[in-house]
Amino acid sequence: MIIAVYPSFNLQVQPKSSSPASQISSDSHIVTITCIILFKVIKCKAAVAWEPGKPLTIQDVDVAPPKVHEVRIKIVATGVCHTDWEYLYESGKGMKSRPFPLVLGHEAAGIVESVGPEVTKFSPGDKVIPLFLPQCGECERCRSPKTNQCRKNWANMQLGVMADGTSRISYKNQQLYQFLGVSSFSQYTVVPDTSLTKIRCDAPLDKVCLLGCGVSTGYGAAVKTAKVEKDSSCAVFGLGAVGLAAVMGCQVAGAKRIIGVDINPDKFEKARVFGATECINPRDHEKAIQEVLVEKTGGGVDYALECVGSPVIMNAALESTAEAWGTCVIAGWTETETMNIMVEKILMGRTLKGTYFGGWKSVEDVPKLVDDYMNKKLKLDEFITHNLTLDQINVAFDLLKSGKSIRTVISL
Amino acid sequence: MIIAVYPSFNLQVQPKSSSPASQISSDSHIVTITCIILFKVIKCKAAVAWEPGKPLTIQDVDVAPPKVHEVRIKIVATGVCHTDWEYLYESGKGMKSRPFPLVLGHEAAGIVESVGPEVTKFSPGDKVIPLFLPQCGECERCRSPKTNQCRKNWANMQLGVMADGTSRISYKNQQLYQFLGVSSFSQYTVVPDTSLTKIRCDAPLDKVCLLGCGVSTGYGAAVKTAKVEKDSSCAVFGLGAVGLAAVMGCQVAGAKRIIGVDINPDKFEKARVFGATECINPRDHEKAIQEVLVEKTGGGVDYALECVGSPVIMNAALESTAEAWGTCVIAGWTETETMNIMVEKILMGRTLKGTYFGGWKSVEDVPKLVDDYMNKKLKLDEFITHNLTLDQINVAFDLLKSGKSIRTVISL
Repeated sequence: MIIAVYPSFNLQVQPKSSSPASQISSDSHIVTITCIILFKVIKCKAAVAWEPGKPLTIQDVDVAPPKVHEVRIKIVATGVCHTDWEYLYESGKGMKSRPFPLVLGHEAAGIVESVGPEVTKFSPGDKVIPLFLPQCGECERCRSPKTNQCRKNWANMQLGVMADGTSRISYKNQQLYQFLGVSSFSQYTVVPDTSLTKIRCDAPLDKVCLLGCGVSTGYGAAVKTAKVEKDSSCAVFGLGAVGLAAVMGCQVAGAKRIIGVDINPDKFEKARVFGATECINPRDHEKAIQEVLVEKTGGGVDYALECVGSPVIMNAALESTAEAWGTCVIAGWTETETMNIMVEKILMGRTLKGTYFGGWKSVEDVPKLVDDYMNKKLKLDEFITHNLTLDQINVAFDLLKSGKSIRTVISL
Repeated sequence: MIIAVYPSFNLQVQPKSSSPASQISSDSHIVTITCIILFKVIKCKAAVAWEPGKPLTIQDVDVAPPKVHEVRIKIVATGVCHTDWEYLYESGKGMKSRPFPLVLGHEAAGIVESVGPEVTKFSPGDKVIPLFLPQCGECERCRSPKTNQCRKNWANMQLGVMADGTSRISYKNQQLYQFLGVSSFSQYTVVPDTSLTKIRCDAPLDKVCLLGCGVSTGYGAAVKTAKVEKDSSCAVFGLGAVGLAAVMGCQVAGAKRIIGVDINPDKFEKARVFGATECINPRDHEKAIQEVLVEKTGGGVDYALECVGSPVIMNAALESTAEAWGTCVIAGWTETETMNIMVEKILMGRTLKGTYFGGWKSVEDVPKLVDDYMNKKLKLDEFITHNLTLDQINVAFDLLKSGKSIRTVISL
């Protein structure tokens, strides 16, 4: 029996009649144990973003023990997501500024190293996926079937700190902010126990890490937010990992026609692997892409999925849908920009929606997505174009920016 | 048995074994009757819009007989809708220009006077509501449960003419265009048989005429497009007839909180009659109305219904909904304007939709709405603030523009 304890934490144990109370006390009364065993600070390597626009630096950092309702994880593998790149290199341009220095990374899988006080759902050794979107299971939003937008610790996590207002990662006593409450570009990190999900022990962490962000987002945009129907027609704008996952979602949902749209034709072969029935490069056409799509489909697609994060493309996606019933889902991300919609494009029956983490309730749905991968319903291996180590993290960013990678998985 | 015939029209009758063939022929073979009975042109009064921005003029017009698949109606009562006013006085400003001279009016009820060739669903004497939105029942859109946007004769009706490219109304041989294929500011008019619905004979035409546009639009925006749920919170922007009908829809759907929003507080008393639980005048607040509503409801309403037709108010409506699951439905009308949306307001889970004629399948649903009125599920009388005659039509416009009327019903 492992009892995880915290400095000066008072553990009260009231054994039930069926519990092995005899291990602690010979009678069934309350016993109080005052523990003075200290969790150790872990020294490990992390890629630190010291300032916006500059490459990451590998540093030896300190990762503090988990506090109440927190879990410390050994990160085994992390994907490199476009959002990591954007917060570093586009900070302030379409993205709100984040505090620096910062440890990026938010699409990962690992193993629980230790748990803080009051953690009941995790134990050391558990395979887990950290979640930038929490699911506390108790709030109004968690109780609603309409949303996955739990806000447990949200404001703090957006500011790069835990519930107590501090980060668990530091470099020579200087606090390093945690990106979206995760920071998986570190060999160890600490997350709230509501921002973590336990997955099956036979899941390969260097694959299922992708379910921590991009693949879940795109796949869910199609099957959960758009609710793509059998035999429908779909257009997916942007064929990065999110877009390819959206293509896969359309295929799993039984769409008859799945049109991939990207200005980089190198993505088309991969798009076909995930189920695209045809691909279009807008640069091959003089007309606007929405006009091309409306003509090609005799009135517009049933579903359009924007996986780029550009207001201009969001408009193109909306206008490429069928006037009377088209649904456009925005899965791409931008924080400060506006889109200018012709009101008439909405009036006759189009629907515009957003999706965040694909609409999945993070804690409960991610393990099911892992099952879907293990049962071969959902592809993951095909997203991984590169495997690198943490000290090659800037190479991973270069590959991403140049459009040469879909997903690089970093082993830590 | 009435056989409606057309000039030089060859009527072929092949009686079924069970039909009273003996009335026509003593055997069951095909009989051909060549008819030379001429339909008469009807001379009657109509309010003519000779040019944009000028009051209407009452004229003696000629209404030609119905052609193939057309029906001539005696208009008994017509509502005066904001759209009529807008196309006259705001032509080119937010509205596409329409051809003039024009006979406005599109929210009416009447009695079939005669039917053209090949019309099978209507007979002289039927009580009917003409429909600016057709339902042919045969096209892809009519077969889909997702839309009411039938396009039968659409392009022509938008241009003010019938299927053959001409209008049936003229003044001294000058063609007068028919507004949205209806033109109910005339004692008689002709409409396609797919733009007309038969209603129960006990329905009071001077009330149910309102189901031809505004009331159906607002009511359907709430119950059919937004699908307002029991115990939800709603905000309705604009408390004209469409907005009040939306308020009524929210109430019928069982909403717990229905907030009416208008800059004219004279509308508030009426809004309460239709079910508003509270009313707000944005001019009473320094903060933007969306901020006021978000504060007032602890995070935003579940449903917002825009019933004004202003892009600024559409944005306010969208932003007044709950971030994680709010639905904003645009029922107001503008043809040429754009709305500028903060993408972030969509990303986390809001939905933006449009509605046209409240999402109702016109031919099949309007008679059901008439039933709902007769069964007291749906209010109509309370919308009618004024009853006038056709020669007072410009007074009706003045009342509408000054915000003194909700609906004026014109008797013809």
